[in-house]
Amino acid sequence: MQLIDALQYNRDNGGYPFHMPGHKRSLADDELLSQIYGIDITETEGFDNLHDAKGIIREAEDRAAALFGADETHFLVNGSTGGILAAVCGTVTTGDAVIIARNCHRSVYNAVMLSGAAPYIIAPQKEECFDIYGGVTPEAVESALSNTGNGRRTVVITSPTYEGIISDIAGIAEVCHNNGAVLVVDAAHGAHLGLSGDQPASPVREGADVVISGVHKTLPSMTQTALIHISGSCPGKDRVKRMLSVFMTSSPSYVLMASIDSMTGMLEKRGRELFDPYEKRLDDFYRKAEDLKHLKVLTKDRLTAKGSHDLDRGKIVVGDPTLTYSGTVLYAIMHEKYGICAEMAAKDHALFMTSIADSDEAFERLYNALYETDMTITADASARCGGRRITEEGSGIISANIKEALFREAAYIPVESAEGMIAADYVTIYPPGIPEVIPGSRITAGSVENILVAQNDGLEVIGLRDGEISVIWEKSSTS
Amino acid sequence: MQLIDALQYNRDNGGYPFHMPGHKRSLADDELLSQIYGIDITETEGFDNLHDAKGIIREAEDRAAALFGADETHFLVNGSTGGILAAVCGTVTTGDAVIIARNCHRSVYNAVMLSGAAPYIIAPQKEECFDIYGGVTPEAVESALSNTGNGRRTVVITSPTYEGIISDIAGIAEVCHNNGAVLVVDAAHGAHLGLSGDQPASPVREGADVVISGVHKTLPSMTQTALIHISGSCPGKDRVKRMLSVFMTSSPSYVLMASIDSMTGMLEKRGRELFDPYEKRLDDFYRKAEDLKHLKVLTKDRLTAKGSHDLDRGKIVVGDPTLTYSGTVLYAIMHEKYGICAEMAAKDHALFMTSIADSDEAFERLYNALYETDMTITADASARCGGRRITEEGSGIISANIKEALFREAAYIPVESAEGMIAADYVTIYPPGIPEVIPGSRITAGSVENILVAQNDGLEVIGLRDGEISVIWEKSSTS
Repeated sequence: MQLIDALQYNRDNGGYPFHMPGHKRSLADDELLSQIYGIDITETEGFDNLHDAKGIIREAEDRAAALFGADETHFLVNGSTGGILAAVCGTVTTGDAVIIARNCHRSVYNAVMLSGAAPYIIAPQKEECFDIYGGVTPEAVESALSNTGNGRRTVVITSPTYEGIISDIAGIAEVCHNNGAVLVVDAAHGAHLGLSGDQPASPVREGADVVISGVHKTLPSMTQTALIHISGSCPGKDRVKRMLSVFMTSSPSYVLMASIDSMTGMLEKRGRELFDPYEKRLDDFYRKAEDLKHLKVLTKDRLTAKGSHDLDRGKIVVGDPTLTYSGTVLYAIMHEKYGICAEMAAKDHALFMTSIADSDEAFERLYNALYETDMTITADASARCGGRRITEEGSGIISANIKEALFREAAYIPVESAEGMIAADYVTIYPPGIPEVIPGSRITAGSVENILVAQNDGLEVIGLRDGEISVIWEKSSTS
Repeated sequence: MQLIDALQYNRDNGGYPFHMPGHKRSLADDELLSQIYGIDITETEGFDNLHDAKGIIREAEDRAAALFGADETHFLVNGSTGGILAAVCGTVTTGDAVIIARNCHRSVYNAVMLSGAAPYIIAPQKEECFDIYGGVTPEAVESALSNTGNGRRTVVITSPTYEGIISDIAGIAEVCHNNGAVLVVDAAHGAHLGLSGDQPASPVREGADVVISGVHKTLPSMTQTALIHISGSCPGKDRVKRMLSVFMTSSPSYVLMASIDSMTGMLEKRGRELFDPYEKRLDDFYRKAEDLKHLKVLTKDRLTAKGSHDLDRGKIVVGDPTLTYSGTVLYAIMHEKYGICAEMAAKDHALFMTSIADSDEAFERLYNALYETDMTITADASARCGGRRITEEGSGIISANIKEALFREAAYIPVESAEGMIAADYVTIYPPGIPEVIPGSRITAGSVENILVAQNDGLEVIGLRDGEISVIWEKSSTS
């Protein structure tokens, strides 16, 4: 039985709830909320326990495992974040090492902090035309593994990235397994991969030990839902599962879980029927996009970075190499003139996220808006590739003890004078939310520049206070 | 504007979403889910960012702060769990100490593990007639503080407990502040306190620095929602806020947030109108309950433990001192014969959670069911207080390094032979979910007995594998 049906049955036929939640399945100030509360229950007779699933939740998780090709799958109700924290903290601890790409999501940095393991950073090449990070090569992972001793090692790769760039997961998995390391793939943006023949393969089927899959992002499931897939003989597998109950509420929402389960059921039954027309819409869109005179859409054959193995074309990345329109301006035009809300805008591109829920009309509307906007560009079509060049950083162990830094005495100073100081907090530029500055590490000239440019461009910079940056107050910092 | 109204306005008038979530506000296999998806959005233009709230979410949080009397309040979408982890990890780190009561929720133990601080356990006295933990005295906290050095110290008190027992928070706050310690109150079960004249005061207004309030449990808000209130000049306040974004998803559900906000709005407007009749229903219930011949309902004047300062009578705890009916049998009778679902049953009592959403009829139904059941008891009314005596444990620093234990080599052995071994994992008896065995600590004879009794009573014991317990495999353990 699907969870959503069981909840509706319980609403109509269940006993009187002298238990949580306090709305008692009805009391709300709003009609829609009241309806939602009808199916919003707590763990009660017959409804299993997410943290030790043996009944209806276990069955739902098993259906998801079968659909996505994992040995076992668990529902996440605290987003991909909860899965990332559990995967890292379950596989490494103090004295171990964790190898991450520089462009990992902030939750990966947090996981490193909580695990106590030493972080080794891989700096991927950039896709210069769009100013986005490329993929990670198996060689870079191999070199990181050979530089991080013989203890427990966990490698975390974001694939696809926010912008859709996919690394060679099969190659990286082989390198990891040859070296006894665990491969965690943060596929928060790739839940839909592998569900149709035209999509790149899912990291689950490419040999990753643990895959965190953000079903709410690209599949029809509620915000804050995700899945963690665990496969093979991943060392620390039991600990990863145990850690899930550390990082997820002991009162998980059945509405969120029912949403995941309903999505699984829909894809089981109607996957083909939903994905086939979606692929066709993408085919059409990308074919037509070749006719744009100035705007450039990211495609697989435009990838230049060494680690960029493949591309998820469901994420439509649009840049303007003539520099007439920055990403943020493009975003604003789409919004104000065409009523189209993009997923995000960075300096050099805007990103439009698509899914099986977008109709022919939606794609057409997007294309037409881009086409019209393209026509308004009069600059020289042969203008150079846009974008500032972000200072390249090298790969290596970073000495940052993130947590210790957070507990040190801090002072706030102007960003302009922060070069060379030790950061006392994260500074993160949104989008895409990659920490620009990591607590405990030295602030580089490049980071100072990036923060100033981002502020100037109207991007959101999180971690400053009244425009100032927090640094550790130490004698040596003033030298 | 309330969040729920803004979301419905956006559903009806917003732009086309080329952004998450993948259901694009509609695609679902179920009519109710499809309606929910209409208001299920991601951070988009005008909808603020939970992790750096400055707009509509900040306003909603400020309204909640005003209602509950806190200096500042933040929405929690990962349950009380997320707040507990942030409160502890934000205030103490390796080398510091954290003082917790033995009956803290498992999330507090997890927070201690993640913080790296040394745990000092206070063992409260028990309410013997009902076999539940009593409150914590200010004296016990003072003694714990004098035994934990001069570093940073955080005290975590659960008040009310699952069963409604309230500690002297004002007294404990004074002791904490005199000693420079932070007081965190886990009020997951006490969100409703202080909202009406007849209820005990809220810990927020009694001087606690940080209060985690599980609004979904006793107020009309969705499962998985909670609040964290931060007041006064709590040391580490900024770090607690920073830690919230570590432990909560970066894709928080607007449906959950709208539910909290709608609850706040309803209580602002109609608090009196909802609480007055609720108090009257409770008055009536407890007055009538005096007529029960055998079943005993926990009341303030039946409290015996030194630290039990007050009682939240919204949680109706019913025991049978004649031992005719155990808590689990009482639970089953209520369910099967009367269609009443209790919150939980332990060996010696069943617990019925009430709220402002329970009508006169609901209370009457509960009372009549208890009355009829009471009539079926023929045993001697003067039978002794029921319940096994759980082996008392002393207060003190526990040497357990929880995290290290989880990473040690473990073996599974029969529970019967585990006395004296070092636990490699938690063993938790549900209800109420207090860890019976803590990783890294020595398994006592009392714990072995409690686990065996719980299994025998049909309670849920989590943490065993095929009935066996995991212990650290060390030479000394076999001696």
